[in-house]
Amino acid sequence: MFGKYLDNLKEKGGLIHNITNYVTVNDVANVLLASGASPVMADELEDAVEITVISKGLNINIGTLNSRTIKTMFAAGEKANELSHIVALDAVGVGASSLRTKTAIELIKKIKFDVIKGNISEIKTLITDSATTCGVDANKKDIISEENIDEKIKFIKKFAKELKTIIVVTGKIDIITDGEKTYLVRNGRAQMSKVTGTGCQLSALLTAFLVTNLENKLEAAVSAVITMGIAGEIGWENMEKTDGNSTYRNKIIDAIYNMDGRIIDSREKVERK
Amino acid sequence: MFGKYLDNLKEKGGLIHNITNYVTVNDVANVLLASGASPVMADELEDAVEITVISKGLNINIGTLNSRTIKTMFAAGEKANELSHIVALDAVGVGASSLRTKTAIELIKKIKFDVIKGNISEIKTLITDSATTCGVDANKKDIISEENIDEKIKFIKKFAKELKTIIVVTGKIDIITDGEKTYLVRNGRAQMSKVTGTGCQLSALLTAFLVTNLENKLEAAVSAVITMGIAGEIGWENMEKTDGNSTYRNKIIDAIYNMDGRIIDSREKVERK
Amino acid sequence: MFGKYLDNLKEKGGLIHNITNYVTVNDVANVLLASGASPVMADELEDAVEITVISKGLNINIGTLNSRTIKTMFAAGEKANELSHIVALDAVGVGASSLRTKTAIELIKKIKFDVIKGNISEIKTLITDSATTCGVDANKKDIISEENIDEKIKFIKKFAKELKTIIVVTGKIDIITDGEKTYLVRNGRAQMSKVTGTGCQLSALLTAFLVTNLENKLEAAVSAVITMGIAGEIGWENMEKTDGNSTYRNKIIDAIYNMDGRIIDSREKVERK
Repeated sequence: MFGKYLDNLKEKGGLIHNITNYVTVNDVANVLLASGASPVMADELEDAVEITVISKGLNINIGTLNSRTIKTMFAAGEKANELSHIVALDAVGVGASSLRTKTAIELIKKIKFDVIKGNISEIKTLITDSATTCGVDANKKDIISEENIDEKIKFIKKFAKELKTIIVVTGKIDIITDGEKTYLVRNGRAQMSKVTGTGCQLSALLTAFLVTNLENKLEAAVSAVITMGIAGEIGWENMEKTDGNSTYRNKIIDAIYNMDGRIIDSREKVERK
Repeated sequence: MFGKYLDNLKEKGGLIHNITNYVTVNDVANVLLASGASPVMADELEDAVEITVISKGLNINIGTLNSRTIKTMFAAGEKANELSHIVALDAVGVGASSLRTKTAIELIKKIKFDVIKGNISEIKTLITDSATTCGVDANKKDIISEENIDEKIKFIKKFAKELKTIIVVTGKIDIITDGEKTYLVRNGRAQMSKVTGTGCQLSALLTAFLVTNLENKLEAAVSAVITMGIAGEIGWENMEKTDGNSTYRNKIIDAIYNMDGRIIDSREKVERK
Repeated sequence: MFGKYLDNLKEKGGLIHNITNYVTVNDVANVLLASGASPVMADELEDAVEITVISKGLNINIGTLNSRTIKTMFAAGEKANELSHIVALDAVGVGASSLRTKTAIELIKKIKFDVIKGNISEIKTLITDSATTCGVDANKKDIISEENIDEKIKFIKKFAKELKTIIVVTGKIDIITDGEKTYLVRNGRAQMSKVTGTGCQLSALLTAFLVTNLENKLEAAVSAVITMGIAGEIGWENMEKTDGNSTYRNKIIDAIYNMDGRIIDSREKVERK
């Protein structure tokens, strides 16, 4: 059911501008290429605003932010809003430092995001402005389980509604909501957390899926989350005995390169809440 | 026939200084190591000028330029010229933003480049100063085909002659000219465009090939283009069913690691025009 | 005998903050994940100091330093010292430029490092403040052999004692000393030098090993060096005919992902001097 959004992306493509961290930038570029989109990266204000104009979507990731790139994020975000382009925020490490928290909260005030992605601790910090994040992984106390999920959803839906945005909370169970409709996704594998950048890749994919599925943004976001999850499953199935997280990294992106809507439809584990 | 230039590089090596974008910098380092050269990266002015002195060649790539690194590009380029070192320019994204176009045009005025590489849209922008580039891929209207190639060559030769440099235009058919002699290379595979950084890798290789073949710079440049193309072919032949663009990335570099002059001589698809 | 330190790391993990170069940063992140640790990268002063606070160890690598990140290195280093966190220095390219040499020497004066790693030319430059480094590889005249090793050890031990730090000199034979006890490690393969970033990965691992083995820092450092060396051996054993340095890069990290103390114990080539 969610396969067609990937097929649209694979068919239409589109240039995605990424202001992203230098840790995982190469994987972000390759996963966009795997999905049918084209990546471009520019983080100097003068350059980035023009690159935003020729792109179809903007993916802002605050992973290794600095004072220069923060200015670029605001300027590019405003330009993208002006042109009604899709804009995504990956709230990497929000709560881990005041600069990250402050920047993300300010970005959300000034820029209209179509989609905001984070783990539960990052999103919780954005909502409550009180940090529980430890580094870039979710705090154990915050982790979503089958037991506490309804309460978490309520909390996240309210925030999505206020911001008029799609919120994607990643974890063992992924939550995707626009404040009205909510989907849970149970694809993916725990071992994905041993590969740096799968989260950054997802925010790039979210941008590309939305850009090519403007009429169904929420479902496109769900499809992006499923795609990443299934890529983690297929990548793992293709692992050999001596393979580890570095080869897994390649196999996840490879799986997206080889994926199509039929694979999504046959493997998606999605629930409407 | 072009194999000997690779053998020279594999035998002699040499330190190559890269002021390059952070998206593909790791692949640039590994492809240089695969070719027999040694990479070093420095983009802070004070550091980079000294690193230029101890290096044999300088590879300038404007992929993720910023005001700090632009200053470094000029200073390192001038120092390299002063020492008669090989200097290469990868005109990534020229035409996609004024900053990139302006920087590249200014670089060409101030620095004597031994080789300038770009796709047809990027090179066209450099020549005419009127942008037709879309992002970092060639504009479809500009694409070189068997039908329009003679006209393109004429245009590029004139520019190479004026600049007294070697121009490398990458595409389905690669054009390499110094304004006098022109070579066409038909190695490579379309799927290489699904791997980020194959272009950046080529400009690093061009630098290394020229550094180790100073008496035959044009032919060394042709050999670098052939090497990259054949690596794309061999890499693809080594792909398995579930592999995709991320594994392909590795296999391309692996192919260069395992390549020698005999492989070049047996697979080169080169034409003197 | 040195396996238990890896087992401790695999079991306990810990957040490691890396102020590192952008060439190999992705591999540094993935190797830390492979080892059981968690990576975080922040190089903006305001961000980095807070990230240092929540981390257990700090890994400073001067590979692509600039004036902004140099300030961050000092501030984060001082904060880490204040909190008695483990701090490591990777002296990449010390001796290759005045800025690198000056920065490293200044860092050593201001910051108490638990471990300092470099090749013999880099460490020699640190000790004598007279450069013999060429790029980022060791100068051939400096290279450690079975013949000159005793003289080298004497020299390095004195420096370790003065600085009250562990010195790790990498090469064909690795030397690890705290000025009192000295270990030699003969694991590893020459082909590792054809993969960019194995040195950067080692300094990240050193940090993680020390963080999780505070009672036995020297032995933990030795274990980190052995782990990297054995990973190079196992990675190579897993290579297929058409594989090259790019696949080798993945297989080295994969080997660490799959390694445990028993493998260390059965393959370690360590000698107490």
